[in-house]
Amino acid sequence: MGWFSKDITNMDDLFVHTLRDIYYAEHQIRRALPDMIDKATSPELKQSFQTHMRETEQQIVRLQEVFRLHGVEEKGVNCPAIDGILEEANEVAGEVDDKQVLDAALIAAAQSVEHYEITRYGTLKRWAEVLGTAKVAELIKASLQEESQTDEILTRIAARANETERESVAT
Amino acid sequence: MGWFSKDITNMDDLFVHTLRDIYYAEHQIRRALPDMIDKATSPELKQSFQTHMRETEQQIVRLQEVFRLHGVEEKGVNCPAIDGILEEANEVAGEVDDKQVLDAALIAAAQSVEHYEITRYGTLKRWAEVLGTAKVAELIKASLQEESQTDEILTRIAARANETERESVAT
Repeated sequence: MGWFSKDITNMDDLFVHTLRDIYYAEHQIRRALPDMIDKATSPELKQSFQTHMRETEQQIVRLQEVFRLHGVEEKGVNCPAIDGILEEANEVAGEVDDKQVLDAALIAAAQSVEHYEITRYGTLKRWAEVLGTAKVAELIKASLQEESQTDEILTRIAARANETERESVAT
Repeated sequence: MGWFSKDITNMDDLFVHTLRDIYYAEHQIRRALPDMIDKATSPELKQSFQTHMRETEQQIVRLQEVFRLHGVEEKGVNCPAIDGILEEANEVAGEVDDKQVLDAALIAAAQSVEHYEITRYGTLKRWAEVLGTAKVAELIKASLQEESQTDEILTRIAARANETERESVAT
């Protein structure tokens, strides 16, 4: 992310740099999702990834609005964190035949992506409350809430899969 | 993480592989913390990093106990996600003179690390409830709770810094 490159001297620089970090991350996530949708075997999981792809597109639009309201150029900066997280997620490359194992690994990968987004939007929301307008904070809060909800949905899908596994172990 | 390398064919393989992923991650975090402690300027932040370093050491010991109880070799596997997250955190390299900006960036970096650990321990706890013993699930739960608490502490420290910033903007 280069938080400490010399061009960051104040909180506003840090805010804008982090906006550009998550802007890049959202684009990378948008690119990764079709493959995850394709690989998910449970219809419920496939559906949740499809919903999240539409949300991701909306989150990109929200970020563009934040750039506009904050009066700075809309652009991304490289983010080794999301690259590393997606490198793991992208390894979901069809090597596994067992559907349950495949879905479990996809959920784990997606939740690591969600948590990255939760932490970044949480930080941006905090900073926006001091540096931005009320509208900027509100846009960031909307995306933060969506990410948290997606994480909760994935936890519920995983819990149901666990119940099935527990029953199969018990019988 | 190589979740989908060909040696992962069942849920137990996935569980063990993810244990080794977080085992590697905890070691990398342990290595990164002294530098973060050194850079933090707020005594409260410095103290929270010191506490977290001791917790990290304890979490490594817990993972060793989990490996032992689960009857598998204790070892790490490369994890591009934590490498990427720490690459960002490690850039906190003293280029910034402003103490407030430095601490804000350190908190953001530390929270992205915490959220990675929260997602991995959350996944492992879920799987351990089906695949492991009650003791294994309990050990993982203890680390998950510590990570969540650390994240909450960092949020509180950041909120107080925000209040100070808001007051300085208002005056």
